[in-house]
Amino acid sequence: MKAFVMKEIGRVAFMEKPDPEPGPGDAVIRATRALICTSDSHTVAGGIGPREDLTLGHEAVGVVHAVGSEVKEFKPGDRVLVGAITPDWGDRAAQNGFPSQSGGPLGGFKFANIKDGVFADFFHVNDADANLAKIPEDISDDVAVYCADMMSTGFMGAEKGDIPIGGTVAVLAQGPVGLMATAGARLNGAGLVIGVESVPQRQKLARMYGADEIVDFSKEDVAERTEELTQGQGVDTAIEALGADGTFQTAVRITKPGGTISNIGYFGSGEFVRIPRVEWGVGMADKTIATGLCPGGRLRMERLLRVLGSHRVDPSHMTTHTFAFDEMERAFEVADKKLDDVVKVLITF
Amino acid sequence: MKAFVMKEIGRVAFMEKPDPEPGPGDAVIRATRALICTSDSHTVAGGIGPREDLTLGHEAVGVVHAVGSEVKEFKPGDRVLVGAITPDWGDRAAQNGFPSQSGGPLGGFKFANIKDGVFADFFHVNDADANLAKIPEDISDDVAVYCADMMSTGFMGAEKGDIPIGGTVAVLAQGPVGLMATAGARLNGAGLVIGVESVPQRQKLARMYGADEIVDFSKEDVAERTEELTQGQGVDTAIEALGADGTFQTAVRITKPGGTISNIGYFGSGEFVRIPRVEWGVGMADKTIATGLCPGGRLRMERLLRVLGSHRVDPSHMTTHTFAFDEMERAFEVADKKLDDVVKVLITF
Amino acid sequence: MKAFVMKEIGRVAFMEKPDPEPGPGDAVIRATRALICTSDSHTVAGGIGPREDLTLGHEAVGVVHAVGSEVKEFKPGDRVLVGAITPDWGDRAAQNGFPSQSGGPLGGFKFANIKDGVFADFFHVNDADANLAKIPEDISDDVAVYCADMMSTGFMGAEKGDIPIGGTVAVLAQGPVGLMATAGARLNGAGLVIGVESVPQRQKLARMYGADEIVDFSKEDVAERTEELTQGQGVDTAIEALGADGTFQTAVRITKPGGTISNIGYFGSGEFVRIPRVEWGVGMADKTIATGLCPGGRLRMERLLRVLGSHRVDPSHMTTHTFAFDEMERAFEVADKKLDDVVKVLITF
Amino acid sequence: MKAFVMKEIGRVAFMEKPDPEPGPGDAVIRATRALICTSDSHTVAGGIGPREDLTLGHEAVGVVHAVGSEVKEFKPGDRVLVGAITPDWGDRAAQNGFPSQSGGPLGGFKFANIKDGVFADFFHVNDADANLAKIPEDISDDVAVYCADMMSTGFMGAEKGDIPIGGTVAVLAQGPVGLMATAGARLNGAGLVIGVESVPQRQKLARMYGADEIVDFSKEDVAERTEELTQGQGVDTAIEALGADGTFQTAVRITKPGGTISNIGYFGSGEFVRIPRVEWGVGMADKTIATGLCPGGRLRMERLLRVLGSHRVDPSHMTTHTFAFDEMERAFEVADKKLDDVVKVLITF
Repeated sequence: MKAFVMKEIGRVAFMEKPDPEPGPGDAVIRATRALICTSDSHTVAGGIGPREDLTLGHEAVGVVHAVGSEVKEFKPGDRVLVGAITPDWGDRAAQNGFPSQSGGPLGGFKFANIKDGVFADFFHVNDADANLAKIPEDISDDVAVYCADMMSTGFMGAEKGDIPIGGTVAVLAQGPVGLMATAGARLNGAGLVIGVESVPQRQKLARMYGADEIVDFSKEDVAERTEELTQGQGVDTAIEALGADGTFQTAVRITKPGGTISNIGYFGSGEFVRIPRVEWGVGMADKTIATGLCPGGRLRMERLLRVLGSHRVDPSHMTTHTFAFDEMERAFEVADKKLDDVVKVLITF
Repeated sequence: MKAFVMKEIGRVAFMEKPDPEPGPGDAVIRATRALICTSDSHTVAGGIGPREDLTLGHEAVGVVHAVGSEVKEFKPGDRVLVGAITPDWGDRAAQNGFPSQSGGPLGGFKFANIKDGVFADFFHVNDADANLAKIPEDISDDVAVYCADMMSTGFMGAEKGDIPIGGTVAVLAQGPVGLMATAGARLNGAGLVIGVESVPQRQKLARMYGADEIVDFSKEDVAERTEELTQGQGVDTAIEALGADGTFQTAVRITKPGGTISNIGYFGSGEFVRIPRVEWGVGMADKTIATGLCPGGRLRMERLLRVLGSHRVDPSHMTTHTFAFDEMERAFEVADKKLDDVVKVLITF
Repeated sequence: MKAFVMKEIGRVAFMEKPDPEPGPGDAVIRATRALICTSDSHTVAGGIGPREDLTLGHEAVGVVHAVGSEVKEFKPGDRVLVGAITPDWGDRAAQNGFPSQSGGPLGGFKFANIKDGVFADFFHVNDADANLAKIPEDISDDVAVYCADMMSTGFMGAEKGDIPIGGTVAVLAQGPVGLMATAGARLNGAGLVIGVESVPQRQKLARMYGADEIVDFSKEDVAERTEELTQGQGVDTAIEALGADGTFQTAVRITKPGGTISNIGYFGSGEFVRIPRVEWGVGMADKTIATGLCPGGRLRMERLLRVLGSHRVDPSHMTTHTFAFDEMERAFEVADKKLDDVVKVLITF
Repeated sequence: MKAFVMKEIGRVAFMEKPDPEPGPGDAVIRATRALICTSDSHTVAGGIGPREDLTLGHEAVGVVHAVGSEVKEFKPGDRVLVGAITPDWGDRAAQNGFPSQSGGPLGGFKFANIKDGVFADFFHVNDADANLAKIPEDISDDVAVYCADMMSTGFMGAEKGDIPIGGTVAVLAQGPVGLMATAGARLNGAGLVIGVESVPQRQKLARMYGADEIVDFSKEDVAERTEELTQGQGVDTAIEALGADGTFQTAVRITKPGGTISNIGYFGSGEFVRIPRVEWGVGMADKTIATGLCPGGRLRMERLLRVLGSHRVDPSHMTTHTFAFDEMERAFEVADKKLDDVVKVLITF
């Protein structure tokens, strides 16, 4: 089969690979739609170290092609969604309530990390009964594919932020994950959602997904403006959706004592992420810093599909570009170099 | 001043009373809008025992008329919202996280219970700095008054229900508090909200406030229909918004193992409320039964006002009748006897 | 092999059965120690319906005899502990945080319920990597076997009771599970543990496991005495460890507003379990009713073994009787009829 | 009256001050015992900025000398404990569940910060009904005084650490607060408590208060040794009880994915506190960083007194030195310069 891989650090290409085979509890999926993620760029740039001929991609939907002998709930032909994170549910970390950490730190993150990803005609899914979800008929692949990572991660930012009904939330950066955090903050009861972003098109999307106010960090001081918007109290929840030291510091600063900094940004460089000491209340201001990794699993995916089915959110407004799988090289370039005001690139198979 | 009181069990009337005076930390409010609550009827019927010449009413907004010497944050002329529950914040129960229980079980419930209520030209509020909230200019009294009890109680039903994003929720009974629980379930991320109700007008309101599906208990079996709507799994959260033994049993039945029964109904009669043993998993199905009493206090009220200010919910659709305070006797009759398809009766001063 | 079974309702006996075989992810264990549980009696009496030739028992430790091809973490010869509950970790309920409910209400409860139990030379364990735990060398089988159910269930009563440091706890009934709830309350920070019990020997054990005060319900009014011991405030947490309607009502009564009733009792009869309406604050006193089913799984078992390894608790004081497996009929009679002041009966193989 | 004050940065002395007077809700306490805290040294060194003639000290017990007109629960002659933190309970932050942050970040910290402290013949307590607790007869002042800060802060480290029963905990630094965190970890169910400390006397105290293992950071690598002690998994909870950047980094490092870093250290210098990026899982390892400030209030103090009354912990082993109030200058020197293996200095009046 055809796969789009990272040949080595800095280089991507198509290559032929043998079709994957399912183990007893696994499934093989024929991809129908996929999304390119910033993480794919990080990976190609060497963010997780060297890889050779590793198939890229972790956001996909498709049709079940084959299942192992122990799989009970799915059969070839089922239209399915696969979470970007496919945990080992029996692992200690999963038993502890943190399936994304099963098998070690971030161990649930298997696609395009410790095994081939989804940018291929077929891809392999471990523990199919636990990690697949059927897509209801009234939800299209084009929309469902956003559950895999964007919605799951973005919403998690809101969930871990412990937002009170009517609370105040700032979402720092309105990339795709930040936009879904904005939507998640609205879904989770925020009374005021402040979207921090400088790019006009993303500001517009932020408003569409529920930001009540936009703060353009290139034109105004985020801390000052947030203080104003919250009558001097700071926000209940600041969601860091960029993964940058300075943004993280701002998040700590603008959060009220007793509030939560919820991190969904991937910090790709530097030895440290720095907490501003005084604004953190010298370590005593009851400001909690929460983190996590995109929740996966059948139950999570079914819940996200329900959010789509009941029309709470339409993530497909983020699809700025669509390419056929054959055009993957061009597609990746657009996403990687952030050409042409790209937000998300959808791949069709 | 003029007050509308419960003369004795079963009898209401206007009477003259002296104007209230504030203690050092208190305020006296001139009422501008109030709502009649089913609890007022319960009280008049003897639900909390005999009372004599007790001013009724606990849902009101108004203008600060006088404040005590220790009040720092409010002054005469401020337009304010008062929670139906006005806790003693230093009490052990409040320190324990349950301010509504300060001073004893349900002790935060003072208006028209242990002191005069709000159906009067003026009424008294303890601990004004902690129990009042300024109403922003762009929110009218007609809307703000719904925060005092209806929104605070209804939303609490959702909050205590521990709804996961995309989760399934049933709200049993769509009276005013149930309608606000429906709105709260939507605000709190429910992916499917099932409103259980038989009255067509309330079904319509339920849909307006966010019910995705309506189950008419007079025409279909609630447990069966809920099972169907949740693909045999039961709901994550069942909110009991009636306060009836049978409804409570249904709530336990339709909740999935690991789910939550969130009670906001007032149980006015009977020695017991009964849990169906087998459907409760013989006491081992991880079905939690949560309860609470309308959260009050400045912070809560400010958050609810923010929900109004950002147009998340418009509770004023529930106002089916409006009367001037002079017409209180007729107004009370309409509410008490549930005449004329009444949902909520608004009183103007 | 030899197995001790329920032949039909009301009748137990030894019988010959074929040795169990492991599936790909499973293990077969050679039993070394087991405990008889009150649930075994319930089952034989017909509590979960008719069964035929079902091997009894769910509390055991042993040595791994055989493992399936997919098992990675265990091998024949390993000395292991098996939780009474052996969840399917990929199931939706487990993904939802409630593994004991995997596969349906109480579905994690497989031994002597939906498959053969542990009173046999060999027994089968599903998902061995997730449901077994190695027993450290310095912990004897005689002690480790208490983790399977008694400690896991009893401690859960304390954990679900949400006990504040220095809080007050009443444990209603000091049978083996109640005794471990008493120990759990101490382990979880209770400042006052009240053991409710009338049998002198169990009172003595209760004191040994951490009860600060004993209330003998046969001689004094539990509600009155608890009020006295808590200076009129009621307990933060009441743990119901009997499974009786009257005891449950007492638990609700003696819990303060804002407190938790944590149920670990098995309610074996009656259509309803009844909540006393007024003492429940007419459904508004913030009294939460929590339940659950004995947590299982490798992580849980390892944590309980650590509690033993660091000598926090010695459950073996509860072993009042020891019989060889050959004497199972007599052993069962002693346990079943509660002869000779029995607390727990240990079976050696 | 006589007071021991900070004259200016770097200088302490006795001085005469007028006796304090209670406002309507306040009390004046005649001190009987006090403890010197490292924070007093921080303050004198300029840690919270310049102060002039400010009475030092925030840990004390005493006898009620006078109460304001609105105080209901206390009267002159009552023997009382006062939390180091005396919140304004009606403040928004307290209503939000964070009383220590009432009135602004760390705003509940009033003694020797925004008003005179307790090193004086008499001291003033705001909101007496909410911030005092009666000391039971069987608890001596010498012991009770440890509740004010040491036990409340140390235990909070354990509580915010979300320790599972049987979980693994490391407490980094075994000063007085760290020792009480060690005791708190035991009280809260830890199955393994690792005390990190190099001073032999403090190691000994750590063992007395419940450390199962001691790691001497001056002789071994803390991360390596912790990994060994936790079979390669890392700890469930790391409590930072020093307030040093390097120690904080170690805390993040040794915590397992899904675990909690609970900070109770006061970070007195530097612009930033640094999170090690990779060990924090690039912001995605579900490692939560929690903080807080010594919980105060009547309920908290009563619960801590109950812990003493039931002999769970005896903090007085930490009293290495006792001085009369007249000898305060020498006492302060001993504490400040950490002379003579001091742990805690008790002052008698």
